[in-house]
Amino acid sequence: MLLERINQVNDIKKLDKSEWEPLAQEIRDFLIEKISVTGGHLASNLGVVELTMAMHLAFDFPQDQVVWDVGHQSYTHKLLTGRKAGFDELRKYGGMSGFPKRKESDCDCFDTGHSSTSISAGIGLVKARELTGGSQSVISVIGDGSMTGGMAFEALNNASQLKSNFIIVLNDNQMSIAENVGGLSQYLNGMRSAEGYNNFKEGLQSTLEKIPVYGDGIVRQLKKTKSGLKQLVIPGMFFEDMGITYLGPVDGHNIDQLIRTFKEAKRVRHAVLIHVCTKKGKGYEPAERHPSRFHGAEPFVIETGLPKSRRAKANYTDIFSTVMRKLGDRDEKVVAITAAMPDGTGLKRFKNMFPERFFDVGIAEQHAVTFAAGLAAGGMKPVVAVYSSFLQRAYDQVLHDVCIQNLHVVFAIDRAGLVGSDGETHQGIFDLSYLSSIPNMTIMAPKNKWELSDMLKFAVNYEGPAALRYPRGEAYDGLQEFRAPIEYGKSEMLYEEADIALLAVGSMVKTAEQVRNILKDTGYNCTLVNARFVKPLDEQMVEEMAKQHRILVTLEENVRSGGFGDHVLEYVNDRKLDMTVLNIALPDEYVEHGNVALLYKEVGLDAETIAKQIITAYIGQM
Amino acid sequence: MLLERINQVNDIKKLDKSEWEPLAQEIRDFLIEKISVTGGHLASNLGVVELTMAMHLAFDFPQDQVVWDVGHQSYTHKLLTGRKAGFDELRKYGGMSGFPKRKESDCDCFDTGHSSTSISAGIGLVKARELTGGSQSVISVIGDGSMTGGMAFEALNNASQLKSNFIIVLNDNQMSIAENVGGLSQYLNGMRSAEGYNNFKEGLQSTLEKIPVYGDGIVRQLKKTKSGLKQLVIPGMFFEDMGITYLGPVDGHNIDQLIRTFKEAKRVRHAVLIHVCTKKGKGYEPAERHPSRFHGAEPFVIETGLPKSRRAKANYTDIFSTVMRKLGDRDEKVVAITAAMPDGTGLKRFKNMFPERFFDVGIAEQHAVTFAAGLAAGGMKPVVAVYSSFLQRAYDQVLHDVCIQNLHVVFAIDRAGLVGSDGETHQGIFDLSYLSSIPNMTIMAPKNKWELSDMLKFAVNYEGPAALRYPRGEAYDGLQEFRAPIEYGKSEMLYEEADIALLAVGSMVKTAEQVRNILKDTGYNCTLVNARFVKPLDEQMVEEMAKQHRILVTLEENVRSGGFGDHVLEYVNDRKLDMTVLNIALPDEYVEHGNVALLYKEVGLDAETIAKQIITAYIGQM
Repeated sequence: MLLERINQVNDIKKLDKSEWEPLAQEIRDFLIEKISVTGGHLASNLGVVELTMAMHLAFDFPQDQVVWDVGHQSYTHKLLTGRKAGFDELRKYGGMSGFPKRKESDCDCFDTGHSSTSISAGIGLVKARELTGGSQSVISVIGDGSMTGGMAFEALNNASQLKSNFIIVLNDNQMSIAENVGGLSQYLNGMRSAEGYNNFKEGLQSTLEKIPVYGDGIVRQLKKTKSGLKQLVIPGMFFEDMGITYLGPVDGHNIDQLIRTFKEAKRVRHAVLIHVCTKKGKGYEPAERHPSRFHGAEPFVIETGLPKSRRAKANYTDIFSTVMRKLGDRDEKVVAITAAMPDGTGLKRFKNMFPERFFDVGIAEQHAVTFAAGLAAGGMKPVVAVYSSFLQRAYDQVLHDVCIQNLHVVFAIDRAGLVGSDGETHQGIFDLSYLSSIPNMTIMAPKNKWELSDMLKFAVNYEGPAALRYPRGEAYDGLQEFRAPIEYGKSEMLYEEADIALLAVGSMVKTAEQVRNILKDTGYNCTLVNARFVKPLDEQMVEEMAKQHRILVTLEENVRSGGFGDHVLEYVNDRKLDMTVLNIALPDEYVEHGNVALLYKEVGLDAETIAKQIITAYIGQM
Repeated sequence: MLLERINQVNDIKKLDKSEWEPLAQEIRDFLIEKISVTGGHLASNLGVVELTMAMHLAFDFPQDQVVWDVGHQSYTHKLLTGRKAGFDELRKYGGMSGFPKRKESDCDCFDTGHSSTSISAGIGLVKARELTGGSQSVISVIGDGSMTGGMAFEALNNASQLKSNFIIVLNDNQMSIAENVGGLSQYLNGMRSAEGYNNFKEGLQSTLEKIPVYGDGIVRQLKKTKSGLKQLVIPGMFFEDMGITYLGPVDGHNIDQLIRTFKEAKRVRHAVLIHVCTKKGKGYEPAERHPSRFHGAEPFVIETGLPKSRRAKANYTDIFSTVMRKLGDRDEKVVAITAAMPDGTGLKRFKNMFPERFFDVGIAEQHAVTFAAGLAAGGMKPVVAVYSSFLQRAYDQVLHDVCIQNLHVVFAIDRAGLVGSDGETHQGIFDLSYLSSIPNMTIMAPKNKWELSDMLKFAVNYEGPAALRYPRGEAYDGLQEFRAPIEYGKSEMLYEEADIALLAVGSMVKTAEQVRNILKDTGYNCTLVNARFVKPLDEQMVEEMAKQHRILVTLEENVRSGGFGDHVLEYVNDRKLDMTVLNIALPDEYVEHGNVALLYKEVGLDAETIAKQIITAYIGQM
């Protein structure tokens, strides 16, 4: 086993060249075996095995610095930097993160998680190097998908001004691009990097005069492609437009060629982009065939590629998917928007049924939201389906483009609350705060799967901005007997008693039910109200609670600052209601990766901890 | 006077062609005269007089729809759509907005204010038109500056997929581009639009074969330019890369040529970009010479172009500017970043003294913040100077790229609080909320000019993310006698008495001082504490207050939800402190344009209203 000799950074350099390919195979086998047990990002990691190896052979870590865009493709990098043992606890609480983490290794120079940040961060590192007189290489590795995020463009626009080396690796795994432009780009590559790109630029006239010599060749090449003009300028010219040297395309599974290109790139005295073509899922057939299924994979059976356990129950995304289809059928004004996540958000079925009313805008949340605002201004009923932590990208667009004009845009916010193994960057625990601060916004959260359906229908037929947020994973199918029609700004009484009132938001209704059972077993009476609306607050209900209860407990899966509890507290304070308020919410800290049930305990959001807190508060109140 | 005949939309079409130029002159005179009295955006509006006239001649409003990016250049559009009388009350409370507003006219189809939104909104309107079977034209007018915002790129990337007409007008007022590429672009323009762009695309081979014929001409042209290769591909090819037809460049002051190009553009069956070259400030010599001074102008003397009243006192931006220069001098690790606002943020002097440590990244707040994070990860001490309402664009970057890693980035947040005449889109009234929800963030606000200086120095030498927010306009120079050193998380006692405690944030300390005087005159004792830190809260101080006071009044120039008051209330509630809390903050609504003193009264944030509220609350407490 070659992997036995890879125990710390730069060990790979001790291998003989002939051992590179076997090592790549061992790494693939290792990743498949480990991820089949723990789950994790597989396809993207299998795609960059050779690319990562070549980087470790061509550069010196940790002196040199690599920023991984999104970061879920950093497994081989982790493996080559002394973190082999970490894979058994990958993405588990207390275990190794699925993303680069500075606190995990000095070979991780910048944390990532969301898309399109790597070039900006890389430029910062380059400028810091220039100012402090360093000489290390800085490399940002970014996928072609992440390149559609506007932030990457803002960064490219700035990268062009650099006067020292900065290497951008464009990890292009869309095979279509590679095949189409292959011949032409080879020609461009040969002309630019090997035979002296700088000469080319300086000797522009003479080079242009050479073109006719190649002219016939180009024309022949172009005839083979569908839209010749675009191919002529994409992707090389696009980056050259920005003032960035383009090298490539390079076969991302050819370590030799990659190393040669890295060496070439190091010589450029400004920003240089290496266009690397890789195959997502490379080397594991099920992942090659279904790269998106193996993007973020649950534990699977290696032989078949099938998940080890089948989901028994529908999750919230499934419910959303079904209801959207119905709504689309019923109302031609309903349109749906996703930022590169038709699968993840559950819009794929809507897409198949109503392709003309479905819009995948790429990784472009800002555009998604303002585009939706434009659709609403044009009389449509847009539903933006987005993950909670990604909607953070469009805070200004929600505030500035949707809510000032009070436009009817529906935000279907998936992955709200703790998401688990993706960790800090992906927890959807801020949306109630950042959305509540925005005037004209209506915010809802369903207690169970039926209520998600009812709320979505309500939101689509409401006039004005409306958000509904629901968690990752299995949809709660309890409390089925409570299904009063949704009424604007009104909460729902589930169990009416006295003394202690639980007022829970969305996912916390289920938890509150458990809390109530614990409290009842301990001898306490307990009212349970489903808040339904986070904004506006059902003030009348809060007034009512004050009449019969000593303590009002708010429960939400969101940070406390600016969340639901704060608004209840404001009201109780302002009206001087005779009732103690206990706010149960997430603490003011980032929550790391791990099993959600475990995380709840860690942050004190499990039923037992909450029940204890309530009893303490209630006794203190007597 | 031709303007007398322009009283409603489409009146311009009744004029004879020979009257166009005289009307343009009248419009310029009108704008100069009105804005010299009211203040407002002058240079950008003077630049688009002919462009707007040509649009009104070539299109039919309000059926056709135009989205103005940023929107401060929409004055001529307002003038031509029946809002002439509004200019006397321009940007005054209750008067006409300086930006497009749907509620103001049906000729304004989408509200704007922040940069780079127009293409996204335009695509939304186009898609809505397609789905509802409309036939109107949709036009987005965007400046070359706004084009650097990533959102515009996200939108361009999507515009390429449109299968019906969408017109993007690139209002390019950087004379350098127009001069450099003039000849070549004329050639491209002639080839593409006049002689059939579509033929060109389809007959790619034959066109390419033609190039050698023009070859000599191109080469000669290129030799005249500095970076020939870039000129060859920018700007036309850049948009063609995106799948968008490029027409231009067009002289933006030639109405005939503009109308012809609009008609040409209408025929394109997908997205088409018209590259229009205009001169900022056109026709008014002082504005042509100093376009940035006349961007957002105070009232001025027409003959000289000089402001009518000279500022007697320094504003906060001036103080920031001075201190940054000193900090830059003292510490080589201090670097400064702005998103296209070296003047507005006061970084121009830093730029002049330390050009290699100053970075203007363009209108690119997202990149600005993550770039700063990269600099911090590389050991520098970056200060991001940004307006409060524009930092909304980078909420995710602050949360995800700076604060998760706890990186030492300083945010100098100017224009925090009510900004006045720019109105809803520019009020900086959300920052305390959206920043407070972020773990690891420290938030400060200075009470006067000396404290801004002290806090900035403190923040630069602190370790970790730190924001300081200060308002637009004159720096308060009272309370000079209070200048205790800044201590992390500690407030500052100004006047210690009993009964009523005022706990004020930043700009509200001055107001609280006035409130205190009113209350004392009415016979109430009043403690005044300067909060200094919004996050973390000085809990010890709150405890102290509870001992001697019946009522604790928080004062902040921010929405209440998630703001400072909420955090104080949380603490008082959690510790069951025996003290009533009164939160004075902005209401949950957008605040329109107008004089700030007047706006304070409107939202109840003036000293008199606050004093009355406190007395009512205090009496209620007895």
